[in-house]
Amino acid sequence: NFPSMSQTDTAPSAQPKVAIIMGSQSDWPTMKYAAELLDDLSIPYEARIVSAHRTPDRMRNFAMSAREKGFAVIIAGAGGAAHLPGMVAAWTSLPVLGVPVQSAALSGKDSLLSIVQMPAGVPVGTLAIGKAGATNAGLMAASILSLGEPAIRDRLDAWRTARTKSVAEHPSDSE
Amino acid sequence: NFPSMSQTDTAPSAQPKVAIIMGSQSDWPTMKYAAELLDDLSIPYEARIVSAHRTPDRMRNFAMSAREKGFAVIIAGAGGAAHLPGMVAAWTSLPVLGVPVQSAALSGKDSLLSIVQMPAGVPVGTLAIGKAGATNAGLMAASILSLGEPAIRDRLDAWRTARTKSVAEHPSDSE
Amino acid sequence: NFPSMSQTDTAPSAQPKVAIIMGSQSDWPTMKYAAELLDDLSIPYEARIVSAHRTPDRMRNFAMSAREKGFAVIIAGAGGAAHLPGMVAAWTSLPVLGVPVQSAALSGKDSLLSIVQMPAGVPVGTLAIGKAGATNAGLMAASILSLGEPAIRDRLDAWRTARTKSVAEHPSDSE
Amino acid sequence: NFPSMSQTDTAPSAQPKVAIIMGSQSDWPTMKYAAELLDDLSIPYEARIVSAHRTPDRMRNFAMSAREKGFAVIIAGAGGAAHLPGMVAAWTSLPVLGVPVQSAALSGKDSLLSIVQMPAGVPVGTLAIGKAGATNAGLMAASILSLGEPAIRDRLDAWRTARTKSVAEHPSDSE
Amino acid sequence: NFPSMSQTDTAPSAQPKVAIIMGSQSDWPTMKYAAELLDDLSIPYEARIVSAHRTPDRMRNFAMSAREKGFAVIIAGAGGAAHLPGMVAAWTSLPVLGVPVQSAALSGKDSLLSIVQMPAGVPVGTLAIGKAGATNAGLMAASILSLGEPAIRDRLDAWRTARTKSVAEHPSDSE
Amino acid sequence: NFPSMSQTDTAPSAQPKVAIIMGSQSDWPTMKYAAELLDDLSIPYEARIVSAHRTPDRMRNFAMSAREKGFAVIIAGAGGAAHLPGMVAAWTSLPVLGVPVQSAALSGKDSLLSIVQMPAGVPVGTLAIGKAGATNAGLMAASILSLGEPAIRDRLDAWRTARTKSVAEHPSDSE
Amino acid sequence: NFPSMSQTDTAPSAQPKVAIIMGSQSDWPTMKYAAELLDDLSIPYEARIVSAHRTPDRMRNFAMSAREKGFAVIIAGAGGAAHLPGMVAAWTSLPVLGVPVQSAALSGKDSLLSIVQMPAGVPVGTLAIGKAGATNAGLMAASILSLGEPAIRDRLDAWRTARTKSVAEHPSDSE
Amino acid sequence: NFPSMSQTDTAPSAQPKVAIIMGSQSDWPTMKYAAELLDDLSIPYEARIVSAHRTPDRMRNFAMSAREKGFAVIIAGAGGAAHLPGMVAAWTSLPVLGVPVQSAALSGKDSLLSIVQMPAGVPVGTLAIGKAGATNAGLMAASILSLGEPAIRDRLDAWRTARTKSVAEHPSDSE
Repeated sequence: NFPSMSQTDTAPSAQPKVAIIMGSQSDWPTMKYAAELLDDLSIPYEARIVSAHRTPDRMRNFAMSAREKGFAVIIAGAGGAAHLPGMVAAWTSLPVLGVPVQSAALSGKDSLLSIVQMPAGVPVGTLAIGKAGATNAGLMAASILSLGEPAIRDRLDAWRTARTKSVAEHPSDSE
Repeated sequence: NFPSMSQTDTAPSAQPKVAIIMGSQSDWPTMKYAAELLDDLSIPYEARIVSAHRTPDRMRNFAMSAREKGFAVIIAGAGGAAHLPGMVAAWTSLPVLGVPVQSAALSGKDSLLSIVQMPAGVPVGTLAIGKAGATNAGLMAASILSLGEPAIRDRLDAWRTARTKSVAEHPSDSE
Repeated sequence: NFPSMSQTDTAPSAQPKVAIIMGSQSDWPTMKYAAELLDDLSIPYEARIVSAHRTPDRMRNFAMSAREKGFAVIIAGAGGAAHLPGMVAAWTSLPVLGVPVQSAALSGKDSLLSIVQMPAGVPVGTLAIGKAGATNAGLMAASILSLGEPAIRDRLDAWRTARTKSVAEHPSDSE
Repeated sequence: NFPSMSQTDTAPSAQPKVAIIMGSQSDWPTMKYAAELLDDLSIPYEARIVSAHRTPDRMRNFAMSAREKGFAVIIAGAGGAAHLPGMVAAWTSLPVLGVPVQSAALSGKDSLLSIVQMPAGVPVGTLAIGKAGATNAGLMAASILSLGEPAIRDRLDAWRTARTKSVAEHPSDSE
Repeated sequence: NFPSMSQTDTAPSAQPKVAIIMGSQSDWPTMKYAAELLDDLSIPYEARIVSAHRTPDRMRNFAMSAREKGFAVIIAGAGGAAHLPGMVAAWTSLPVLGVPVQSAALSGKDSLLSIVQMPAGVPVGTLAIGKAGATNAGLMAASILSLGEPAIRDRLDAWRTARTKSVAEHPSDSE
Repeated sequence: NFPSMSQTDTAPSAQPKVAIIMGSQSDWPTMKYAAELLDDLSIPYEARIVSAHRTPDRMRNFAMSAREKGFAVIIAGAGGAAHLPGMVAAWTSLPVLGVPVQSAALSGKDSLLSIVQMPAGVPVGTLAIGKAGATNAGLMAASILSLGEPAIRDRLDAWRTARTKSVAEHPSDSE
Repeated sequence: NFPSMSQTDTAPSAQPKVAIIMGSQSDWPTMKYAAELLDDLSIPYEARIVSAHRTPDRMRNFAMSAREKGFAVIIAGAGGAAHLPGMVAAWTSLPVLGVPVQSAALSGKDSLLSIVQMPAGVPVGTLAIGKAGATNAGLMAASILSLGEPAIRDRLDAWRTARTKSVAEHPSDSE
Repeated sequence: NFPSMSQTDTAPSAQPKVAIIMGSQSDWPTMKYAAELLDDLSIPYEARIVSAHRTPDRMRNFAMSAREKGFAVIIAGAGGAAHLPGMVAAWTSLPVLGVPVQSAALSGKDSLLSIVQMPAGVPVGTLAIGKAGATNAGLMAASILSLGEPAIRDRLDAWRTARTKSVAEHPSDSE
């Protein structure tokens, strides 16, 4: 069953500017939150499995051709010794956003350090561990795209305003 | 003594698109690596001290007016309970990059968690602790700007190529 | 469904001296332990949702007006990159007590460090992670109020004495 | 050589309302920052060595008689398995502020957890590890006293305003 | 329901030489493993709830009178900011064994550091977090008593030999 | 019920070259993943329980005779204060691979540090915490054996190729 | 140069009841604090280097013969993957006290977990990381011996009383 | 200045079977301990700088051709977000040994987790953080080679025996 990919829904002919890649199928329950956010903002994206360790050449090919294919931002999620975001950033100068997936034994602390502690020269903009990080990777991609696309900026600001308005004044015992 | 600000050197009339803000003067020895990288790529920037805790209104004013002033990317560095990057991101939808400054007792682990573990809705693209993170924040800002400015992309790719070429084949005992 | 607020029960016209604020509805199952403690001691309070990241202006307005509204102590709970207690303390010189809410991936370790590691100049009195911390924030608020209100001191000391007496001499297999 | 104790300087006959206690002489280079802050705000205090482990009865006597002696706030600093703040809080219902002193092997992480993770029933308002925490314990004591003493509130707010004004606009290379 | 106390079973008139104390009833599911081990070795013990924070005077009285009552070894279990073992050791020169009880948020890491990181002068012999630690506290108490009681040494060595013999040669899929 | 041991299935007379040892039966649900991998590659192995702490002489005898018995690689799994891999490596110069078993309180962080932080002179090649580590220990044993046995190299490379091919191009919502 | 061994000074013919063993010469600057404490209390001891990894048979021989040689308590210090205390405890039912030596990279956190997290069945009474732990191991050995030797108890209690008396009332700026 | 490479000294025509690779020149002060160990055992090796992030294609070419060039074991050292060992293991089925280099902010904890926490399918045999790990990587390489080369086994066993003999019986104050 194929994940929803908004570009086919909202802009059939548009080349997506955002790629969401992940190390394995097991990362999708986390990374789909990035996809949902982009769906909410009507930003086309493509979701792919690209494993740094099991499919290193697929990863290299993806990274080396990402800009010429039209991608502007790459969201990469991985867990444990999470090498995918950093290695993709080694082969492309596009902005790469990293999402540390929560791991079994160490709760994503290994994922976080493996992604964020990149040496000088190859940056990965890292978001929070798990679902919040995936949602925020989507938001940050929108934020980057908004610099060149006023329509995205408008949708992003509307999303933020609606979110602000949705915050209740008082906590409720019934929720 | 005022830090070098390349916009006065290379593009006198240009409004800088990158803001480098930090919580205190003591963060500058770290954050100047972001400035140096931007100098290397001839990207104008403005460096300011904006303390979330000591000057919260200055922070709010900065964040709320950043986009209209012409900034496109905000680099924010702070240490300890580092609230500056996340709070700036609460008041602007511009992309915010966070640099965890190495702290005295906990070596920046507190800075890192305070910056990267943002809740869903308000993203901060977090780089590594310390100098490497500051350099990479500069590179990531360049990467984002390169999407709309081919000249920056060319300089960024040249910087990366030169860096790749500078890697020696063998380690040396004399260094 | 609105949480019980003892001021309406025990002192209808009294302006509560304690504010319990939290970053989101999801913090209420933790923060209600502060409310219950204050209920136990018949200390009026007001419970509000004030999100540092989603409603930063609500937060600022709350903090700036808290003293003139009659609040004496602010209890602030938040999780993850928990900026609420520290940012409130940036806008008010009232005593602010911070409760690190247990987070999903890092069990509140991120919440704790984000709250307690404040830089010199802006203090947050931090309690334990989770429910124990929320209860103790209520107790500490009572302790502070007891300095000026002997009746609270009497109730607080009675609460403590009762608690001491309730400790069984021997462990029981049946509990 | 005896540490400066502002009550003898500024208010000879005043009973200090703040006690600064610490587990050993080796904690004084940290805890003196609490004393200096109180000196700055002209708040009398008394500084004492009270070791939970070496002088447990001194600690108990101190805690049990603190309120009747006229103390309103207790600042307690300790390192490693830091039991002083929590044990003092077990014998008094006065507000107790804890300062985790930076330890040799674990940089104060053990001190922090030993102080902050108190069980429900006995609160310790914990500040940051080390010097920042000691300064902030002084500030929080002032904040608590300010509730009943407008003059302290005025001095505290003036201190905060001066601090805000002292933040430079731009970082300086010469510092 | 009162926990089994082997001294009534095996040596009605014997004063137990081992005390098992714990901070609260909730520690008993862990600490009963110490009791069971002592039951296995027919070593009388007494199990008591002694809370450092809720019943500090009970704790002090217990510790100060422990040696004259005939206790030789004290096993103390506690969780979180676990002060019980160290404070008991402050009032008695009997050997004190500490068991870090697994805590809710930090899995006993806080308990461990609060117990083991005692300053020079007041030792606590610390065992592992949780059930294994409780069992081993019982074994270590037996080991200490065995120095003066050959019968205990014989039972201890027999227990160890039986345990060695019980280790299967190969793992089994059916268990 | 005895675990499958491939040497009886695929090469009845072959002395297995790989030993899989573990500290207790409770480690088998983890360590069987090493066995399954070796089964997949038709590499004979022997699985044994060898407890460093309960059966130290069995451990020593095993380690001292391992090479002469024909073993070439030893896979050792243990949890908590995991001494088995390092102690076996102290008595044999065969390559020893360590698998940190996930522990109850600390999620295998203690196991990992106890295994990997060996002093200079006695190496243990350590794999990841838990099941992934056990599988990889099997793979690394195969990798070592492949240096001298081309057939194993062929099977190992085929296993890796099949694994690469099995990675789907896109994530699926239905899994 | 041979370390002072008090048994030759104070009781030439006495068989020492305490063994201080350590994994390497580099542990002596830590472990000598145990020796000094025993010197202070006139308790004979023997100090030896026994490496679990480099001299495993020496370790086994030491542990197996320790009781018959007349030792009553074993103090074992080691760093990193510190297996010495636990392995000695595997071969003797004498009480074993473990001292985690501060390690280079992880400051003794690895040493601590390797020593304290022993599985049920083989206890090691663990003291603090580093010098405080070594001193306390000496004190705990004295405490154990005091159960059978009133003279040691008297000296131990005198040591503790003197230490209590030595605590100054106030901190001093001149130290 | 070129590091000593023993193959030119001891076996001019021999193709080295061990490769020592590292992410940057700054790793050499750590990794040279692997080289020195191999020198001690007269095992030829080649030392190269191969940066995963700055020279990803050099890394890929190295890994893909390593077996055909005659390498049998690869030792890879890196720090921070240390991707080199795992990525090399993605492109070769040779045994890969990883050395976590001690990093500036996190003391190699990030390096360790980035190397050891590999997902199932791609193993890296990880050694200790820093110099001990580098020495042990050399020893483990020797151990692996010893399976096919009795001369190496003899030299390895002699090295171990000499090391065992070099352990003094007693600690010395003069060292």
